[in-house]
Amino acid sequence: MTVAHRLLLVVHPPAGQHDSGHHISSLPQLIEADPDAPQVHVLDVSATRGDGIFETISIGRGRPQALHAHLQRFARSARMLDLPLGDLSVWHDAVHQLAEHFVDVDEAWVKPVLTRGIDGHGETAPTGWAYAAVSPDFRREREVGVDVVLLDRGYRSDVAESSPWLLAGAKTLSYATNRAAVREAQRRGADDVLFVSTDGMLLEGPTSTLILRRGDTLVTPPPSFGILEGTTQGDLFTAAEQWGLSTAISPLVPDELLAADAAWLVSSVRHAAIIRSVDGTEIPVDAGLTAAMNGFLRSRRD
Amino acid sequence: MTVAHRLLLVVHPPAGQHDSGHHISSLPQLIEADPDAPQVHVLDVSATRGDGIFETISIGRGRPQALHAHLQRFARSARMLDLPLGDLSVWHDAVHQLAEHFVDVDEAWVKPVLTRGIDGHGETAPTGWAYAAVSPDFRREREVGVDVVLLDRGYRSDVAESSPWLLAGAKTLSYATNRAAVREAQRRGADDVLFVSTDGMLLEGPTSTLILRRGDTLVTPPPSFGILEGTTQGDLFTAAEQWGLSTAISPLVPDELLAADAAWLVSSVRHAAIIRSVDGTEIPVDAGLTAAMNGFLRSRRD
Repeated sequence: MTVAHRLLLVVHPPAGQHDSGHHISSLPQLIEADPDAPQVHVLDVSATRGDGIFETISIGRGRPQALHAHLQRFARSARMLDLPLGDLSVWHDAVHQLAEHFVDVDEAWVKPVLTRGIDGHGETAPTGWAYAAVSPDFRREREVGVDVVLLDRGYRSDVAESSPWLLAGAKTLSYATNRAAVREAQRRGADDVLFVSTDGMLLEGPTSTLILRRGDTLVTPPPSFGILEGTTQGDLFTAAEQWGLSTAISPLVPDELLAADAAWLVSSVRHAAIIRSVDGTEIPVDAGLTAAMNGFLRSRRD
Repeated sequence: MTVAHRLLLVVHPPAGQHDSGHHISSLPQLIEADPDAPQVHVLDVSATRGDGIFETISIGRGRPQALHAHLQRFARSARMLDLPLGDLSVWHDAVHQLAEHFVDVDEAWVKPVLTRGIDGHGETAPTGWAYAAVSPDFRREREVGVDVVLLDRGYRSDVAESSPWLLAGAKTLSYATNRAAVREAQRRGADDVLFVSTDGMLLEGPTSTLILRRGDTLVTPPPSFGILEGTTQGDLFTAAEQWGLSTAISPLVPDELLAADAAWLVSSVRHAAIIRSVDGTEIPVDAGLTAAMNGFLRSRRD
């Protein structure tokens, strides 16, 4: 049976139980819960401080895509926030359990969330959940494209190294500026944002990775610039090499985007969205390569 | 009767009811709720995106302190995030209703939270709540002081003007970097953080405003630097002028902090915390003025 959405809570066993015997597993339990009912405390730091991490993983006909890369990035974000993640296998199981409900759906997504827990409760275990739902229709973004504006992210491209407490490159729940940037793009009549560092380097979108094509080479900016290592970009680069294209991870400036033969904002659920204009200036669209990219992304089976 | 903590949900009437008649108020309703039970949906953007705003207001023997200034700042944060706040009187009422439960307590606090609502539910009303609890014991911070480290915030001091989508100066729920900065301070053996802009200006603490004393003058950095306008600092400046001190809002650099006659991180609930050292270098402590400040702050009746 197809469902619209589904929720699993990732619940640590109560400390008392855990202390009292050797036979009780300390692995968090997965508990099915009602996604339409409140499940988070008002003191949970996800809700009050954005103090947690997440991933968003696409599901193609019931199969999670790029799950290993997503969970590795989840673990990296946890380390950057000093969050005790515990055993990744619980999250692996949660994603698979949810995905099975969406075998009759072409595209769905699942979002695992881990928070530092309930504020003021001392050393309580972190709380978490995984939520899954059917994906929206992204045909316009994939076939027609999006208008993008360049917005200053306010940070230098070396911020991740110089100031790790700013969490650049971690996928945290503190996304208010990402959403404000998209509202700014909409005010300017555009759809999406490409962030630029204060030293003029192209970075990433609020929820996507930049890829551009220059001749036979696909290029993306380096994660060392304090941006997320793109799971979708990683899969696309592997595919592109099989298609005979070259790939490069390299610093990029806005002029190189304007001079590109094509460009995309790629992400797990929306897949490859065509960038059709940058600050009002149209750039070339490669319909054939875009179709190949999205065909490949949609049909991934792991 | 004294209570440990208390919760009011700020609930908009269902759209259907609102549409169907003229007699149903569109003002949100205040509904008493169990603070120990989950109250927030996993799709609420407070929990998934840190996309909302808050204030933390101290309560002295049942009386909210600096409430007007806090609610004005709440409204300013809402404007910066394009959040429809509606009638401030509902939040005023919520704070007062909660405060009344804490008349037998010297110090308590209440936190109003407004979020953009539940993701994917289109134009649903924002959700909100106000939570109140007894304050922790801050005698150490007020009487002995805190060790502070200077940390780069990554932004220039003109970021609020140049890049408003970065929300510098809004009190948002996206506080993961503020918490990461405090963990960095603790790794360095300190207690708290004072942020510095990339152009070398002193800014603010993660949850506090800097005040320093230079002779007979109290000085604080300007809100135009993308920092919060301090409600506690505002009240203290008013009091200081009555005590015969001068006050100034002025750019400050780290050397001026090290040369100060005394310095504090002031905030609503912790009040005036003495800065006793900066990056390991001790600075003078003004015990008398600190006691006057905290006596004044504790006894405010509005």
